[in-house]
Order: sequence, then structure tokens, then C-alpha cells
Amino acid sequence: MNFPSKLIEDAVTEISRLPGIGKKTALRLALHLLKQNEVVTEALALSITKMRSEIHYCKTCHNISDDVECSICKSHRRDRTTICVVEDIRDVLAIENTNQYQGLYHVLGGVISPIQGIGPEELKIETLIERVMLGDVSEIILALSATMEGDTTSFYLGKRLKETGVKVSTIARGIPVGGELEFTDEVTLGRSILTRINYGNE
Amino acid sequence: MNFPSKLIEDAVTEISRLPGIGKKTALRLALHLLKQNEVVTEALALSITKMRSEIHYCKTCHNISDDVECSICKSHRRDRTTICVVEDIRDVLAIENTNQYQGLYHVLGGVISPIQGIGPEELKIETLIERVMLGDVSEIILALSATMEGDTTSFYLGKRLKETGVKVSTIARGIPVGGELEFTDEVTLGRSILTRINYGNE
Repeated sequence: MNFPSKLIEDAVTEISRLPGIGKKTALRLALHLLKQNEVVTEALALSITKMRSEIHYCKTCHNISDDVECSICKSHRRDRTTICVVEDIRDVLAIENTNQYQGLYHVLGGVISPIQGIGPEELKIETLIERVMLGDVSEIILALSATMEGDTTSFYLGKRLKETGVKVSTIARGIPVGGELEFTDEVTLGRSILTRINYGNE
Repeated sequence: MNFPSKLIEDAVTEISRLPGIGKKTALRLALHLLKQNEVVTEALALSITKMRSEIHYCKTCHNISDDVECSICKSHRRDRTTICVVEDIRDVLAIENTNQYQGLYHVLGGVISPIQGIGPEELKIETLIERVMLGDVSEIILALSATMEGDTTSFYLGKRLKETGVKVSTIARGIPVGGELEFTDEVTLGRSILTRINYGNE
């Protein structure tokens, strides 16, 4: 594309670096920003740079935070005996939105994936073991994706955590709420039978 | 959504103001930016604010420009006797990319739309008449959308330009290249017969 302006071209190039945004969408966004008041573009630019430069990662659970320790780890209303292990910050948000969990978190920063060259040492596993060793924790809940990588990571963590003697559980895999039996895949259905629970206990 | 960080929340709010980007996509983009080097987010923020604060609109054709006059109006290789009238900056880019047009442009900044409260006085029509009055122009090509609003604007411009005595043409409406006859709508097909051209002349 030939741009009549270097300024537009630069903005389009930078915006199109974002995931899922191509040159055409970037141009649409740039032209939209051009029509806005200068205050709007400044607020956008400032919020991005401020977020990137001032954000902290919680020293305990590696969740994002405005402070050295995140609001969940600091809270006195959370159950400090349970730690839920997740892959990503987004998983923390997802679980928090269910309002079903009152414990703490531990963000691994990824899952073991030999294809992408991510081994256990790339993940925040040692700090998890340390937290368990401190002795306050009675249960670790593994809440990783039901993929090959997620299962591998769960298996590895289970083995590592066995030494500490802490109780380790994993979130249930089964048919989703609202899901119809005949459309559920065989593996999921098979697992949901093997890991069945007493009726009324769910 | 409950954000663990005010910084993230601000960034997500600002990003989700962009057209076509919801809260979930904004969060995905914010978390992506968090993982990038600080240089990347700074380049993005700078390009946006710089574009918004330093951009000019060409004094002659109202196209975007890094200068008081745009590169097309300044160029000595363009045919200065023809002006193509378009709605938007994006239309200039689209026509430029065809490599079929060597004349100048005039960006109206919209089309007449009573529903949206846009009348002729909101558009850059007076400056177009002035350009024609200067006497160098021999043909005005109306390249507006084939919509009700586009046609209304073409009709209005045709009437206004009649006084000046300049030749006025409009881009052809017909079946698109690669389009099959049986799938073309009746109005387009009817028009393409009425405005037929001598074979070999297209």
C-alpha cells in the first residue's frame, strides 16, 4: 500500500504488529484515531506505556499487580491453605469471575511444551515448591488446560509435589454444563464415566 | 470483569474504545503488549500520538499529508486537469493502488446524508468549486459509493458543477470483474445494459 503520509504509515505499521490485526484493520483504526480528539489518542498511548513500564508481577504468585504483592495474596479474606496452579494471568481472571474459589493462585507463565522449547525450568515451578515447603498449604489444585501440554505439566507437577506430601487435586474434566451427551466426544465421555462422582456431591 | 491491576484495567478500557474491539480482545492485546519489550509499546504509543498531533490535511485537496500540501498535489508528474472527487482518505488509497489514475483528488470528507445530519455545507464542496473556477481543470470524475447517499451527493455536485461548465463524469457501475451474470442483482445488471460501452473501449 502507498501511504500519502509517513506518519500514517508508521502508525499503521506499529498497530499491525498486534496479534490478529492486519494492515487493513490497522489503517481503519489509524483513520478512526485521526478523527478523534487529541485527548483520546493521548489517553490510549499513555495507558499503554504506563501499563508496560509500571506493572509488577506479584513476588509470591507471579500474577500481574500494581504492587510488589498482588491484591489476592495480600487479602485477609482468602483461604491461604489452598493454591490453584494456572498457566496464565487470563486463567486467574477466568476463575475469579466464577466466584467459586477463595484460595490463592500460582501463575506458571506457561506449560511444558517440548515443541516450543519450553521445559520445566522456564516455568515458575521452584517458587511453587518453596511456597508448599513453607508449610501453610494443605491443597494444590491443578487448573491447567486439558491439552497434551497441560496434562504433561500436571503430571510433572504431581510428581514434584509428591515429595512435599501436600494433597494435589485437578479440576474435573467432563461434559460441559448445558452439553448434550450425544455430541460429547468419546474421550471426554469416557473420562467423565471413569471420574464419576457421588450424586449430589458436585 | 475484575482486574487485579488498575494499570491493566485502564489500558483495556482505552483499547476497547477502538471500533470493533471488545473487552476480551482488548485484554488479549494488553496481555500481548505486556509480554513485549518496552521498546515495542513505546513505539506504538509514540506513533499514535505523533500521527494525531502532527498530521496535516492538504490545503488543496484535503487529503492527509505530512505537509501543508500533499505529495499528490505537489507532484509534477500528475495530470493537473483532472480531479477525482472521493468521500474519504481511504478511497484515495484504494484508487492509488489501482495505478490507473494519474490526476489529482478532492476529498469531500463524507457524503450528503440527511439521516446523519450531514448537509452539503458540512462537506468540502466550496473549495472544489473554487479549484474548478481557477480554470486549469477540464474534467471532474465523481468516484462516490453506489449508495443512496453517494448518488445524492453525485447529483448535487453535478448540479453545482454545471454552472462552471466543466466536464463531469462518474465512475462506471456494472458487473464486477470476475462476476457472473446470473448472480448479479437486477439493478446493477439493468444499469450495466443502459450504460453499455462500445466493445474494445473499456
